[in-house]
Amino acid sequence: MRLFLLLFSLTLMQNLPAQQKAVAASPKTMPVLVIHGGAGTILKSQMTPEKEKAYKAALTEALQKGYDTLQKGGTALDAVETAVRILEDCPLFNAGKGAVFTHEGKNELDAAIMNGKTLAAGSVAGVTTIRNPVSAARAVMEKSNHVMMVGKGAEAFAAVQGLALVESAYFFTEERWKGLQKALEEEAQPSGVVDSAIRHTPSALRQPENRDNKYGTVGAVALDQYGNLAAATSTGGMTNKRFGRVGDAPIIGAGTYANNASCAVSCTGWGEYFIRLVVAKTISDLVEYKKMPLKNAADEVCMKQVPALGGDGGLIALDKKGNIAMPFNTAGMYRGYIKNGKLQISIYKE
Amino acid sequence: MRLFLLLFSLTLMQNLPAQQKAVAASPKTMPVLVIHGGAGTILKSQMTPEKEKAYKAALTEALQKGYDTLQKGGTALDAVETAVRILEDCPLFNAGKGAVFTHEGKNELDAAIMNGKTLAAGSVAGVTTIRNPVSAARAVMEKSNHVMMVGKGAEAFAAVQGLALVESAYFFTEERWKGLQKALEEEAQPSGVVDSAIRHTPSALRQPENRDNKYGTVGAVALDQYGNLAAATSTGGMTNKRFGRVGDAPIIGAGTYANNASCAVSCTGWGEYFIRLVVAKTISDLVEYKKMPLKNAADEVCMKQVPALGGDGGLIALDKKGNIAMPFNTAGMYRGYIKNGKLQISIYKE
Repeated sequence: MRLFLLLFSLTLMQNLPAQQKAVAASPKTMPVLVIHGGAGTILKSQMTPEKEKAYKAALTEALQKGYDTLQKGGTALDAVETAVRILEDCPLFNAGKGAVFTHEGKNELDAAIMNGKTLAAGSVAGVTTIRNPVSAARAVMEKSNHVMMVGKGAEAFAAVQGLALVESAYFFTEERWKGLQKALEEEAQPSGVVDSAIRHTPSALRQPENRDNKYGTVGAVALDQYGNLAAATSTGGMTNKRFGRVGDAPIIGAGTYANNASCAVSCTGWGEYFIRLVVAKTISDLVEYKKMPLKNAADEVCMKQVPALGGDGGLIALDKKGNIAMPFNTAGMYRGYIKNGKLQISIYKE
Repeated sequence: MRLFLLLFSLTLMQNLPAQQKAVAASPKTMPVLVIHGGAGTILKSQMTPEKEKAYKAALTEALQKGYDTLQKGGTALDAVETAVRILEDCPLFNAGKGAVFTHEGKNELDAAIMNGKTLAAGSVAGVTTIRNPVSAARAVMEKSNHVMMVGKGAEAFAAVQGLALVESAYFFTEERWKGLQKALEEEAQPSGVVDSAIRHTPSALRQPENRDNKYGTVGAVALDQYGNLAAATSTGGMTNKRFGRVGDAPIIGAGTYANNASCAVSCTGWGEYFIRLVVAKTISDLVEYKKMPLKNAADEVCMKQVPALGGDGGLIALDKKGNIAMPFNTAGMYRGYIKNGKLQISIYKE
């Protein structure tokens, strides 16, 4: 009888998809999903009730659909891709549709994704025709022997993989276009930044009114029922960027990192500082090698190292136990999570 | 009398250049310079005496000129740039002149540089017209507000900065061209890799005969008399690369990192694995946060983590005390250093 039951169970398991087999073999982890929609000078005094409602609705949709994926047995990778795609498709955020414009009036998009179980990673930078850069990053990870592809080459690869390509007009939004015009006008003024990319007047880049030219990146980190972590980040970069500038989002270790041995991290902020400090990997190493609790590690880098160097921004981080950290050293950060089935969304400082 | 001497000293110091002031103010550190010319299947059985002599002469020139810079009061940054420029100009190495060819028969170059004192960093990727990519990386670091620039944008920036631009024919070498033809022929064979960038036959990439398509990167790490560290790396990437592939060399934290608080690192090898493990920053964090001696940290990542994931390669690392590590898990690595005025060059396993 025991043998019969065993054989019966084995037969059942063989008919189950691979993911569900894993479930049958080990106790389920309670899934967690955390997302961000960018840090910056987000002040309640400058927000209309309509705008706040729209942001919260978009964050809620991304969280719910990503979490649905996790509840249906999807992987952490599936969940972060799902959530980030929704934020990319939403014109409110600086990623995919709604991305900021470059100096030449184009949208150059960067994205990355990483699997904490295998340390597999993929990223694209400077792409202009891929509707969902995060899915292109995933294709680089899963369908190529490479980790990072840039520019036209990355677009050619996305085409080979059958990803949705769009005309550049798809990414156009009135608000971002106005943002570029404002930045160009400021440049044209005698007292303004002659070229924001070249250091004629370095301090000008730090003026409060154009700080947010750098922000609005989106990202997600997830823990699935198989106990695996994943991270993804997507961005349009800086308004009025030039010279093929690449920020931290598509740099594995800087803006995006995931490792089951430590944590998953997605960053948003002044990318140059996040690259120089290799922010995501540093948090992972503080957890893995210095045995810091996740929150302390995230605070150490985001609230101490980044401001000490002169940068700002925020990040989301998640470890295998479901601990969440969402530090930011700016006025606000669009952020939220679903944990134990409970949804929580925040914008300003608590 | 004492006051007079003090005033006299101060007057003297004010007439000295900034760097020499620093010397006057603190005891000199003994400078150290370490370089590599790539790891790979470098076997004594396949080397001619003439070829070995040529490699040693090139490594010696890079070391001596870089060390001269340090002895004359130059910074670690000056030394690593000097050494890497010499290796870029030498057709023996896969960087600058002598770079491998892409699938389309072009040379796409990547480079990075980092200042361990300030954590300032610069990098370029996918550039085709810049004679010395390491100097372009330095210009990005010092003359822009950005860290990373790619493709045509990076070339436009280099032009604005007055760097030497060359026709693509400058990078041509017969040996690398033959390497591409061989790779293309292998692809064309029914049993071969249909496209080495796409995973039709993943195992094919690991065949011994085309392993070295991935190697030959050059790099340098230095410690100057002011006690500061710097690192630089430059590469042509992989033979027959496609889709705008970017490797670890220009990724801050992966192939290149420098931090006075820990060490300076430059890597060479199968870039994808070095990106996924964020190799250079991991070594830095093992030193800074886990308090590992430099050699142990370098071995932990290069001899354990990289092979465990399936990758291979090597690296050079240097800390503030002048400790050197040069691990590699391949048959050989072109490498050398000058320490305490003594020059040492090696190619094979000791």
